Amino acid sequence: MPAGAKLPSSRALGQALGIARNTVLHVYEQLLAEGYVHAQSGSGTYVADTSPERVLDGDVRGGRRVQRDHQRLSKRGRRTIEMAGVGRHQWGAFMPGVPDVTEFPLKAWNRLHNRVWRQHRPELMTYAQGGGYRPLRRALADYLRVSRAANCQTEQVIVTNGIHQSVDLSIRLLCDVGDEAWVEEPCYWGVRNLLLSSGLKPVPIPVDAEGMNPAPRHLARPPRIIICTPSHQYPLGCVMSLARRRMLLEYARQHGCWIIEDDYDSEFRFGIRPLASLQGLDTYGQVIYVGSFSKVLFPGLRVGYMLVPGAMADLFAQGIAELYREGQMMLHAVLAEFIDEGYLASHIRRMRGLYAQRRELLIEAIHRHYGDALPILGDEAGLHLVLELPHLRDDWAVCARAADLGILAKPLSTYYAVARQSRAGLLMGYGCVPDARIAPAFGLLARAIGE
Amino acid sequence: MPAGAKLPSSRALGQALGIARNTVLHVYEQLLAEGYVHAQSGSGTYVADTSPERVLDGDVRGGRRVQRDHQRLSKRGRRTIEMAGVGRHQWGAFMPGVPDVTEFPLKAWNRLHNRVWRQHRPELMTYAQGGGYRPLRRALADYLRVSRAANCQTEQVIVTNGIHQSVDLSIRLLCDVGDEAWVEEPCYWGVRNLLLSSGLKPVPIPVDAEGMNPAPRHLARPPRIIICTPSHQYPLGCVMSLARRRMLLEYARQHGCWIIEDDYDSEFRFGIRPLASLQGLDTYGQVIYVGSFSKVLFPGLRVGYMLVPGAMADLFAQGIAELYREGQMMLHAVLAEFIDEGYLASHIRRMRGLYAQRRELLIEAIHRHYGDALPILGDEAGLHLVLELPHLRDDWAVCARAADLGILAKPLSTYYAVARQSRAGLLMGYGCVPDARIAPAFGLLARAIGE
Repeated sequence: MPAGAKLPSSRALGQALGIARNTVLHVYEQLLAEGYVHAQSGSGTYVADTSPERVLDGDVRGGRRVQRDHQRLSKRGRRTIEMAGVGRHQWGAFMPGVPDVTEFPLKAWNRLHNRVWRQHRPELMTYAQGGGYRPLRRALADYLRVSRAANCQTEQVIVTNGIHQSVDLSIRLLCDVGDEAWVEEPCYWGVRNLLLSSGLKPVPIPVDAEGMNPAPRHLARPPRIIICTPSHQYPLGCVMSLARRRMLLEYARQHGCWIIEDDYDSEFRFGIRPLASLQGLDTYGQVIYVGSFSKVLFPGLRVGYMLVPGAMADLFAQGIAELYREGQMMLHAVLAEFIDEGYLASHIRRMRGLYAQRRELLIEAIHRHYGDALPILGDEAGLHLVLELPHLRDDWAVCARAADLGILAKPLSTYYAVARQSRAGLLMGYGCVPDARIAPAFGLLARAIGE
Repeated sequence: MPAGAKLPSSRALGQALGIARNTVLHVYEQLLAEGYVHAQSGSGTYVADTSPERVLDGDVRGGRRVQRDHQRLSKRGRRTIEMAGVGRHQWGAFMPGVPDVTEFPLKAWNRLHNRVWRQHRPELMTYAQGGGYRPLRRALADYLRVSRAANCQTEQVIVTNGIHQSVDLSIRLLCDVGDEAWVEEPCYWGVRNLLLSSGLKPVPIPVDAEGMNPAPRHLARPPRIIICTPSHQYPLGCVMSLARRRMLLEYARQHGCWIIEDDYDSEFRFGIRPLASLQGLDTYGQVIYVGSFSKVLFPGLRVGYMLVPGAMADLFAQGIAELYREGQMMLHAVLAEFIDEGYLASHIRRMRGLYAQRRELLIEAIHRHYGDALPILGDEAGLHLVLELPHLRDDWAVCARAADLGILAKPLSTYYAVARQSRAGLLMGYGCVPDARIAPAFGLLARAIGE
């Protein structure tokens, strides 16, 4: 029947078809409920127009159209997109923050995977109930006590899907809209974006050789939360001194601030003794420690963890289940066995040697080109270093020219919130670059610097 | 050296050890930077006290202690914990929202898994670049066009880790703090919590047999976003009529509102014809469609997807990379092959038959105990139905008694934001209950209802 046609009355149709009027009424009600007909009171029932009229989405990507789409975002949505830091490429010389995933022990991993999946354990295939698979939490507690001098029990470990989620959960449980958060200046773009999208106000705190260095005007105004990277400042690479660690802990205690210790790549240190984590020094339960397997295994794994003060452990376990609905306990089980059988420790040991070698090769290449003319920052730990370019202002342009030559580097200046405090330089990751590629790739980068 | 001991001057130590004073100074600076010594100006350098003094976290879990810990959360954090909806048990009769994970084709999955992992593709092991692995996005676009009458291209599909993340991303990109959001009354607890934790104001809109039914006072005040479950209202189970769908779309167009169509379990329908999705009817790009594999495969998989208007696709892809740092493309690749090789379609077909059978068994059991005395709501689709208890007020107490007998059910009243509008009833999932267990388990539940 065409749209707009009037249906016969239920009585007439029932008589015509020889069925009970109630049956017809029931059918009409169903059609009405599903919108295939509409009723006009006192007039009758009409066939509705249900043919979809689709306006095809054109491929117009001109400036005006894009502008309009952008404006359909919220203010915080626009800010997120405008401040976007994720690069289009995630692999190659000298992508910072990416480990050599080709060295991952795939065979061992797959053997454990198949073992876990053969066990057919339905309770691992449904939602998790707060904090993740317990044997993984236990394995992580053991690992963090030994490797990071952490002070923790199994319950304090919350398994997340990475540092973004760990920080986001902390912000949502501990901070309200309008609260201030100290972040390092410069800092990881992801943290600033998370704060802004949760309605917090990031306050940039300058970093010196000892780490985050709040001025008296900052100290006079305690924030709700302090986010820092004490083991290997991101991006500059300095290590927070013990004195500064104690100062921060004491300040947080006095003013009731929370501290998030982001320990994103502390496993790789070259020739320096690791300091105790802030978490290990914390005696008042002020520190949330966050870490990740992205640098020690591979980023796409998306498993991170946090260590929360014992008294807050249950609340965080509930909070993560509530806000994100956890699962992936099969993956947690594989990872737990990977750790328990010693593969994590031996992989880290092997990769430390490999990265140390690549770091040397990169530093040699830099010295060959520039001698001591360009300062190298933050090469004592992690998977990247910073080559400062004090004679340049526009490190952006260098990176753009390098990209044309197929070389990735990130401009240091873009990690600063306050442009006039920013320094020019290049973040260079050597983790995912094969040894033989390092010198030639740096040669191309030097061309981009020189032009 | 003991804490507090004074170090010799750099000049004296250099002379004593026969090394350059500069070398000593360099060492002292390093010790100072790392906090092992502290300098007092005009007096000298002293050994710092670096021994950790730990106050052990007691196991005091008395009321006062818990209360205090609670108060260390933010206001939104406390609200999240207070409104927690995640149950302690996620498996068994009659846990709603959980499919039968024991029926998942593990062998086929593992074969595909091993095939993907043997390929050693490093680009799948690093961070994703916005939206997820493209072949999975393509497979999902094909699937949604056929099964949900969706109107979409590959680019419009964004792979997420579930409906929580899809809704959270939409809120963060499209809404600001203080914006209003229409939610169904009653609605899924998770959505209300996500809104509150992002600073939005949920406005409960009553649901009738045709779905969300805004009153004139609601219509007079357009929200920023409308969140609804048109295919199978959660929790009541009604299907939104076509007329109501069109009304919502037209209203959203006129007032510039966004609509989130949560299609959490539309794959399982029993004897009724599926209606076109809101997304398929949307001609102005107002609808964000969100779906998940939690009900069709297994919840712990944590893969969901969203379909965004074509003009917004790039912005959403950027936004998700920015706020959550995506990865898990190896998992995406396995899932893409699972879909392309027809396993998804055949699994859904098989499970539809199995769930239809369980639904019948449950309805039979209800009728055997109660005849038509207790209304059954929302049994036409999905994995749960609602048994209304119009003679009772306290469905909580029934669930507590049932839990003592080992039977899970969720009280309907707790899904309402406004207590005086709430109805008493039980959400009962039959998806994860073996056929033979249904009647005996309902017998126990009936005891809990009767007491």
